[in-house]
Amino acid sequence: MAAFKLNLSLNHHLQNHPFINTKTKIDFSWQFNKTLINQPFTITCTSKHMEKMVSLREIQGPDNWSGMLDPMDPVLRNDLIRYGEMAQACYEAFDKDPYSKYCGSCKVPPKSFFQDLGMDSSGYEITSYIYSSNTSNLIPKFFIKSLKSDGPWNSRVNWMGYVAVSNDETATRLGRRDIAIVWRGTVTKLEWMEDLMNFLKPVSAQNLASRDPNIKVMAGFLHIYTDKDQSCMYSKFSAREQILAEVRRVTKIYGERGEKMSITITGHSLGSALAILSAYDIAESGLDKPEKTERIPISVMSFSGPRVGNTKFKKRVQELGIKVLRVFNIHDRVPNVPGVLFNECTSALVPWVADWTSFFYSHVGEELGLDHTKSSFVKERLDMVSMHNMELLLHLLDGYDGKDSEFRVARGRDIALVNKDGDILKHEYLIPPHWSQVENKGLRKNSKGEWKLPERKGIEDHLRHLQVERHLRKLRLI
Amino acid sequence: MAAFKLNLSLNHHLQNHPFINTKTKIDFSWQFNKTLINQPFTITCTSKHMEKMVSLREIQGPDNWSGMLDPMDPVLRNDLIRYGEMAQACYEAFDKDPYSKYCGSCKVPPKSFFQDLGMDSSGYEITSYIYSSNTSNLIPKFFIKSLKSDGPWNSRVNWMGYVAVSNDETATRLGRRDIAIVWRGTVTKLEWMEDLMNFLKPVSAQNLASRDPNIKVMAGFLHIYTDKDQSCMYSKFSAREQILAEVRRVTKIYGERGEKMSITITGHSLGSALAILSAYDIAESGLDKPEKTERIPISVMSFSGPRVGNTKFKKRVQELGIKVLRVFNIHDRVPNVPGVLFNECTSALVPWVADWTSFFYSHVGEELGLDHTKSSFVKERLDMVSMHNMELLLHLLDGYDGKDSEFRVARGRDIALVNKDGDILKHEYLIPPHWSQVENKGLRKNSKGEWKLPERKGIEDHLRHLQVERHLRKLRLI
Repeated sequence: MAAFKLNLSLNHHLQNHPFINTKTKIDFSWQFNKTLINQPFTITCTSKHMEKMVSLREIQGPDNWSGMLDPMDPVLRNDLIRYGEMAQACYEAFDKDPYSKYCGSCKVPPKSFFQDLGMDSSGYEITSYIYSSNTSNLIPKFFIKSLKSDGPWNSRVNWMGYVAVSNDETATRLGRRDIAIVWRGTVTKLEWMEDLMNFLKPVSAQNLASRDPNIKVMAGFLHIYTDKDQSCMYSKFSAREQILAEVRRVTKIYGERGEKMSITITGHSLGSALAILSAYDIAESGLDKPEKTERIPISVMSFSGPRVGNTKFKKRVQELGIKVLRVFNIHDRVPNVPGVLFNECTSALVPWVADWTSFFYSHVGEELGLDHTKSSFVKERLDMVSMHNMELLLHLLDGYDGKDSEFRVARGRDIALVNKDGDILKHEYLIPPHWSQVENKGLRKNSKGEWKLPERKGIEDHLRHLQVERHLRKLRLI
Repeated sequence: MAAFKLNLSLNHHLQNHPFINTKTKIDFSWQFNKTLINQPFTITCTSKHMEKMVSLREIQGPDNWSGMLDPMDPVLRNDLIRYGEMAQACYEAFDKDPYSKYCGSCKVPPKSFFQDLGMDSSGYEITSYIYSSNTSNLIPKFFIKSLKSDGPWNSRVNWMGYVAVSNDETATRLGRRDIAIVWRGTVTKLEWMEDLMNFLKPVSAQNLASRDPNIKVMAGFLHIYTDKDQSCMYSKFSAREQILAEVRRVTKIYGERGEKMSITITGHSLGSALAILSAYDIAESGLDKPEKTERIPISVMSFSGPRVGNTKFKKRVQELGIKVLRVFNIHDRVPNVPGVLFNECTSALVPWVADWTSFFYSHVGEELGLDHTKSSFVKERLDMVSMHNMELLLHLLDGYDGKDSEFRVARGRDIALVNKDGDILKHEYLIPPHWSQVENKGLRKNSKGEWKLPERKGIEDHLRHLQVERHLRKLRLI
């Protein structure tokens, strides 16, 4: 054992790490490696939340998270929760009130997104919002709109998520500039599942960058990703175009600075499907290989996601080097659709049929299946919607140490969060169900004594379409 | 027409009256009378909200509001709305969250009651809260309790309302010190109706001050009014005893000062029944005739109330000089129970049966029936709960000028209030239904990042039982 002086970046990481108490004497035997990849080291540490060995490794999954899931790597868990909270934030920011003139938009401006949602320490800054248009009306129950048809917000457009870039502090901690793409899922109810079942038909991904017509994805997901409405400034470009342009813009900036980068795409539920689809598209478009820069690793942190494409799609995602980690509650039924009958398991039994029909849906990536019945905080009987709940999943992740380990309570994540959008906790904890709500549904009393939903100013500043156009031209997409 | 100098009190009234623009030239022909009773006078005035003749008379109803209801007297309407808002405030202050340890109590302390509810200009100060115990368990669906059975709040006790006294400014305006007794009604749903239907049996009011065993009232109401739980400091005395003691205490204070007084009792729904019952009891106990003081008029402003007692009860209430004004939506079914078949109408057809059985339920007092179909703001189809809604009733009152007059919109009361606890307004007004809610159901994030319902301090200060006891002894009730 030799004394070792940590470099500034690592020191910073340790000082700010939620599980590591840096006041504790640290002993380690470790060879320093600049890349911090595939080089395990151990630190003996104690903290209020954890008194165990921490293995610090690359969370981006270059090795498909081999050896990091069982037992669960605490650093990976922590970062997974962080990405999950960024996805959860979309639900809270989304204006889903049909009585609002701005229903379907994001309630807060991108500049103060994390602050307004009480996530000051997210470590990211939003660079762009993502919008999608319901032009084809293929998934009517997914898109929501205001009761006022002639309001200031285009009723066919929904806010779909955001692109964010890690700030300097987080970039230092991660050892790279992380570009996060975060997709909003569906509002709590599961009516959209019905939409999905109605549009099980897989369609060729050829209107993406794909060159193989046998690569097929769910028509519904593809439409959300590619539909646009030329008449509307928010969806003049499709979600796809907005993202490709933004990734090009941001990677150009940091590439020119010579920074290492990563692209991490995340989402819950339907947002997870869009995350995988967009990861595939970004890689297929070659945006992970900018000029004069080393390849940017692309990872997907998928939460409770359904299947997205067929086996050909899965193979291509693997070939492209995209790393997917699928976190889900094993009792949740959403990850089983589409393809309850024809999926990656049955295709192994009848591989020639699968190849011939291109019809077998297949999950992509590594699995991290969690089990809500292991948490003593959770009700014994949950309905379908609850088993699919994102906050429940984060709670399960927080208490997870490995397949055969017991669920560990009180690791620091407040259990009350589990009931934020659900009725999941046992009554004895006295946490009201569905407690996340704003005062008086956002109505405010004005000087005349009238209760009104405030006008929202500067809503048109959310997108920078001129830039999108410029980058799409560079990408030869328009 | 002669110039006339108004006395200070009247001047003050006019200056503060919401409908009267005192900058307008005032012409009148009128003989001044100290009592201000039964002496109509007219003022030509203009205001933003009303440009019509205002008839200023005693709103306490000494003449059973004769000539004041059609056309509607604007001053009476204004005061009725004020009493109605005091009753509505009970719904907002009541902790009805079963996940709260304090479920069943009042969320705010009496000292800051009106301020905490945004009613700074109520013009009243609360002197005592009223509690009731569900000892007999006769109306189980009316009483609510916490899921936590061993919490700091007695699960059998519910906060039932308050006693308030007009402040100096309001007393000056009204020309008397008004003692308001305000009863909470039932939380929005109508399950308690089922309870009532199960306990239609009228019982003798003999355990009140009544001497006639044929005077009968609904057993359910009587139990809420008289039940007590010796083991609990909040319901050691029944609601009845708390009120009688408080009325004696307050009337003694202002009586000794030589002030004129009035007692106005109000409540919505089941609260209206308790208002009539307590008015009867106060008068029957002789509390309206304190020594060395002129009789204190007792009025009931009843909102959407069911029937309370039989025809003998009605007659006695009239004999005692209690004035009751019943405001209700003519489509609401609650005022028709109990006694859908046997009521004041059918008893007129078969009076000998009514007298013989003592079984006919009868409404007491003057009627002010309003019609929600006259308001263009209200949905065309409403369910039973909505038609019984208190805020809807206040909206109808606000727009009411008389039986044959059109509903007058925009008199100053915000229409958004109609949807505060209901789904009543037409969608086109874009007011979310049931918008009255607190941020995150009252959960607050503490310094450890945990979301908790805050502990409530000083809850035991809400009652002053020593005083209750002293006054009950004076009344020879204990």
